[in-house]
Amino acid sequence: MKYSFYDDYSEGVHTQILDALLETSKVQTIGYGNDQFSKSAADSIRKHLKEPNAAVYFVSGGTQANLTVLNSMLKPYESVISPENGHIAVHETGAIEATGHKINTIACQDGKIFADGIERVCDEHIDEHMVKPRVVFISQSTELGTIYSKKELEDIAAVCKKHDLYLYLDGARLGSALTCTEADLTLEDISSLVDAFYIGGTKNGALFGEAIVLVNDELKKDFRFYLKQRGALLAKGRAVGIQFHELFKDRLFWDLAEHANKMAVRLTEGLREMKVQFMTEPTTNQLFPIFPDALINHLQKDYGFHVWSKEEEGNSIIRLVTSWATPESAVETFLSDVSATQKL
Amino acid sequence: MKYSFYDDYSEGVHTQILDALLETSKVQTIGYGNDQFSKSAADSIRKHLKEPNAAVYFVSGGTQANLTVLNSMLKPYESVISPENGHIAVHETGAIEATGHKINTIACQDGKIFADGIERVCDEHIDEHMVKPRVVFISQSTELGTIYSKKELEDIAAVCKKHDLYLYLDGARLGSALTCTEADLTLEDISSLVDAFYIGGTKNGALFGEAIVLVNDELKKDFRFYLKQRGALLAKGRAVGIQFHELFKDRLFWDLAEHANKMAVRLTEGLREMKVQFMTEPTTNQLFPIFPDALINHLQKDYGFHVWSKEEEGNSIIRLVTSWATPESAVETFLSDVSATQKL
Amino acid sequence: MKYSFYDDYSEGVHTQILDALLETSKVQTIGYGNDQFSKSAADSIRKHLKEPNAAVYFVSGGTQANLTVLNSMLKPYESVISPENGHIAVHETGAIEATGHKINTIACQDGKIFADGIERVCDEHIDEHMVKPRVVFISQSTELGTIYSKKELEDIAAVCKKHDLYLYLDGARLGSALTCTEADLTLEDISSLVDAFYIGGTKNGALFGEAIVLVNDELKKDFRFYLKQRGALLAKGRAVGIQFHELFKDRLFWDLAEHANKMAVRLTEGLREMKVQFMTEPTTNQLFPIFPDALINHLQKDYGFHVWSKEEEGNSIIRLVTSWATPESAVETFLSDVSATQKL
Amino acid sequence: MKYSFYDDYSEGVHTQILDALLETSKVQTIGYGNDQFSKSAADSIRKHLKEPNAAVYFVSGGTQANLTVLNSMLKPYESVISPENGHIAVHETGAIEATGHKINTIACQDGKIFADGIERVCDEHIDEHMVKPRVVFISQSTELGTIYSKKELEDIAAVCKKHDLYLYLDGARLGSALTCTEADLTLEDISSLVDAFYIGGTKNGALFGEAIVLVNDELKKDFRFYLKQRGALLAKGRAVGIQFHELFKDRLFWDLAEHANKMAVRLTEGLREMKVQFMTEPTTNQLFPIFPDALINHLQKDYGFHVWSKEEEGNSIIRLVTSWATPESAVETFLSDVSATQKL
Repeated sequence: MKYSFYDDYSEGVHTQILDALLETSKVQTIGYGNDQFSKSAADSIRKHLKEPNAAVYFVSGGTQANLTVLNSMLKPYESVISPENGHIAVHETGAIEATGHKINTIACQDGKIFADGIERVCDEHIDEHMVKPRVVFISQSTELGTIYSKKELEDIAAVCKKHDLYLYLDGARLGSALTCTEADLTLEDISSLVDAFYIGGTKNGALFGEAIVLVNDELKKDFRFYLKQRGALLAKGRAVGIQFHELFKDRLFWDLAEHANKMAVRLTEGLREMKVQFMTEPTTNQLFPIFPDALINHLQKDYGFHVWSKEEEGNSIIRLVTSWATPESAVETFLSDVSATQKL
Repeated sequence: MKYSFYDDYSEGVHTQILDALLETSKVQTIGYGNDQFSKSAADSIRKHLKEPNAAVYFVSGGTQANLTVLNSMLKPYESVISPENGHIAVHETGAIEATGHKINTIACQDGKIFADGIERVCDEHIDEHMVKPRVVFISQSTELGTIYSKKELEDIAAVCKKHDLYLYLDGARLGSALTCTEADLTLEDISSLVDAFYIGGTKNGALFGEAIVLVNDELKKDFRFYLKQRGALLAKGRAVGIQFHELFKDRLFWDLAEHANKMAVRLTEGLREMKVQFMTEPTTNQLFPIFPDALINHLQKDYGFHVWSKEEEGNSIIRLVTSWATPESAVETFLSDVSATQKL
Repeated sequence: MKYSFYDDYSEGVHTQILDALLETSKVQTIGYGNDQFSKSAADSIRKHLKEPNAAVYFVSGGTQANLTVLNSMLKPYESVISPENGHIAVHETGAIEATGHKINTIACQDGKIFADGIERVCDEHIDEHMVKPRVVFISQSTELGTIYSKKELEDIAAVCKKHDLYLYLDGARLGSALTCTEADLTLEDISSLVDAFYIGGTKNGALFGEAIVLVNDELKKDFRFYLKQRGALLAKGRAVGIQFHELFKDRLFWDLAEHANKMAVRLTEGLREMKVQFMTEPTTNQLFPIFPDALINHLQKDYGFHVWSKEEEGNSIIRLVTSWATPESAVETFLSDVSATQKL
Repeated sequence: MKYSFYDDYSEGVHTQILDALLETSKVQTIGYGNDQFSKSAADSIRKHLKEPNAAVYFVSGGTQANLTVLNSMLKPYESVISPENGHIAVHETGAIEATGHKINTIACQDGKIFADGIERVCDEHIDEHMVKPRVVFISQSTELGTIYSKKELEDIAAVCKKHDLYLYLDGARLGSALTCTEADLTLEDISSLVDAFYIGGTKNGALFGEAIVLVNDELKKDFRFYLKQRGALLAKGRAVGIQFHELFKDRLFWDLAEHANKMAVRLTEGLREMKVQFMTEPTTNQLFPIFPDALINHLQKDYGFHVWSKEEEGNSIIRLVTSWATPESAVETFLSDVSATQKL
């Protein structure tokens, strides 16, 4: 195998983070996330957000973040609105339903939902025979690598306010969304528009871990109870805290995501030169080119990637994911190999 | 602060494990625990257990292990029997109940429950107006640092077979239990007597992580669905796999636990020389000496420890925990300081 | 108000059932559904089904029946497939999700789903990141008053067998479905094709109550535990048992449903004479005529009915429901009033 | 069988209630508890309570009432405090845990718990590693037929206020508790001291049904959503509403309970004359005499009753329950038979 573009969690951990783990490994700290490293990491994040009162918690994974936060927002009869291809709706094995809540799905365009779709769901849920929508769930970037613009997010936030809905953003790939060319939303903008979100570390340089950010005061009370009950309060909370301290004390989080995006841009350019079409406009670190099946078969010998769906006339959509760790050489070799195969 | 005996998760991570994380950090692997390191770690554990068919899964913490395994064992109306001071019964914020199940508690002696108590619970649950007990939960070592003997565990296993109960063992501190002086149970014995258990890494050298072991074939089917649904399937499964690979490829797991016990024995000896009494017979790495409150106040300036409970006549029980990382010098200094204070 | 066609639970209770309650009111019985009346009612139902081994339980309502049976069929990570307008999917306030399970919805035609749609859902759910479909939920008659033909139900049953899915049928309005003109499925057919279903009493002459029938042996074990846990095991189980004894000792259940259908047929004929169009082909006791809004406004002064949805050009679909208790005179008066208003 | 004292739900339904069902059976009403009978019944109850703002809902059974109300009071990590022999703790098949919540049990005296025990539980639950107690559950009368005095209930209410706990009272046998000789609490007193309770109809003349009363304003919002989600919102809500209308329009509820108590008093007197001892002081309609096993064997041929527990020296405690329907002659015959057998 020359290289895997299968996903952005195939990688290990960034050197600077490993060094920090090494450096602190002899220090004793208090447990369960009350340690100095976690506190300092939370402070750094708050500074970047310009939200001095945001509550920040570190957990081990994205499904855990989603189920814990959403569960804390909802009364038993309340539901969450999600894109129909949303991670919670499709790829978390019913984790939200396992906490007792229905997900109301909305058809998406390029992986996104919009204010009018949300409003329609609210208008349909009128009495006690139906669940009551209470949260909107979106991802930035989305499952298809697209991003919400500032205007789109503002519109969603406005409809949420109107219908008394919380807005929650899954930021598993937030780094890539913040640093891509088309991005017009800063981390600060996001935290001013949503009620809660999480910042993904696993897919952006960390060994593992995500940072939950609660912006809305209503959500902060007793949140550690929710974490503990769902097995999300790590005894050695420092294990994630130290990593986010490195990612946010300066701009490592942004730098790593920028690299992933740069590799994606190069891949896109190279493929475009070869007249390759894409399912959705390439924007962040997930690309969805349409390849002939013969080419795919050939490439699979040397490269890892996901075959997304069969298309007409012997073509398929594949997914290529770049990351903070993708070497430029891997991208160039891949492009050469595609080009060479095309010519056969 | 001279040293904290507060718990065994105040520490960082063992050098050999950090080295392994460093060494592998440039390698790409497949995600969600299907990587080579996790597989190899599972193989090593199976070899130690002499259970070639055991299913092994790595998760980030103990509450997560407990809730995922117990949830997978129980139909909605079935319950788990636990010591009344069991971790799941008291210190997991109702995590088991949050998955829908009642815990039937049994009064304990020195933190342990016995076959007759289990039988009594079964005899009392007779019809559909009551839950149906289906699992017995025990910890080794227990919440009070005591251990089950081989005979005691065999008796419990026998009563479980008789009443069609699964036996599940929480091994957050299994290392210390296996390597203490009184231990007459090997890891192999345990896996032959229980249906499932977990081996604690967090408290024995790892940065974080526990290894769930499913011995009974009935429990293996679709277990990864349970993990995913509860947010316990780490995208970078390697993060725990690599650590357990180090702990179990040779005997690091045992060596680290032995050190913790050695420190506990030295503490015990030193305190006994000073005529200190203990709440329970010191056995593993948790000690419960009874100290005068004045001594406790004095020691709290320099040492971390948990004040367990108030006793009569101005005394209290405290908890001292040693670990794989406790330096001998910390123990000696502590003993000197106790001795010096006693003489005042 | 001249008459309400709003629904089929606006009515009281059939005289013969009231008489039976009166006659037995001085008799002492054992509680929780183990009484002689409930047993005898279950026997009668089994006789009609020609399923001597079917397990029969009486509960107070349809949502209770659905949530209890579905919950008993599903492991935590398993899901139920439902029409997107299915009662459990839309009108039970997330009752199924509250027991921890996702509902996978399928777009319907005239309120129905078909074997190919079910197969597609199964094919899409491939690994532990997604729920595992385990039950298909359908209603007979459907939310739109349509019915599955014998062929359609056989095809669904076949695809269920193929994919190891249970088939569950919500029979809130089963009486009307069994006795309508188009019906080619008998009660016996249904019980031979599904794994479980319930027979609705509330909407067909009873004061309240539904009869759950478990045909598949796998579902019978410990079902009373599920009932009790969900609050569905009535202390005075006789209260429903006596009613179903009356409905099924002879053919009262069928006779009452036939009356409802007869009234619906008369309504349909009358409206057709007036050139009224229908949203779906009238089949059972729910009719969905399309009326001009002006006519609707006029009729609402004297009649109860549900305005289903706005259509184009000043028309709306309304729902008219007939029942075992609808007097022929109410139908005729309604038709006259429609006719008179049309002429204005 | 001459007579069954097995329980108070072996009976049918009081004539006056049956008459009301008969009288109203031809009337059409709106569904789901919004009918005129349910509204009128709620008004009558509010009048008796002198709580014009109390919310009143009618459900089919006690477990349903308990699980729906408690579930509505609790956040996921909150728990309910109950006597260790409380109905929810022992005899509801884990219904409360099935909604996700732990029950903290307190040892009882004569079936009762007291303010100090509640305070102790609150003091022990100190951080996010433990559940947070939020409701106190008690029954009036208790599982052992005893009752809380006004002073005891006031003390419990005071400790609840102090610790921000809701107080919920299970009134399955509230009628008997209100009308027994020792009673110093009126229905009005109770509703002024608790946050919510239910009034039992099933055991006091109704065919089935209980009336949930929410006194505390915080609990009223969206309660119908909770009812619907748990299958507790009957389509024909009138079925219970009509019954409670009869029970509470005048004093039928009290009259029926008084009869049950009168029969219990006569039984008690008769047994006392024969020097029979009781496990708890007879107070309401549940009596727990201690009988020689030989006598029990003899009586079982002609009478139904529950053998509660084996005592020393060939004796057992039995439970005798009287009801609104118990004929005086049954009591006298029973006493004669006991007396005759004693003399053998």
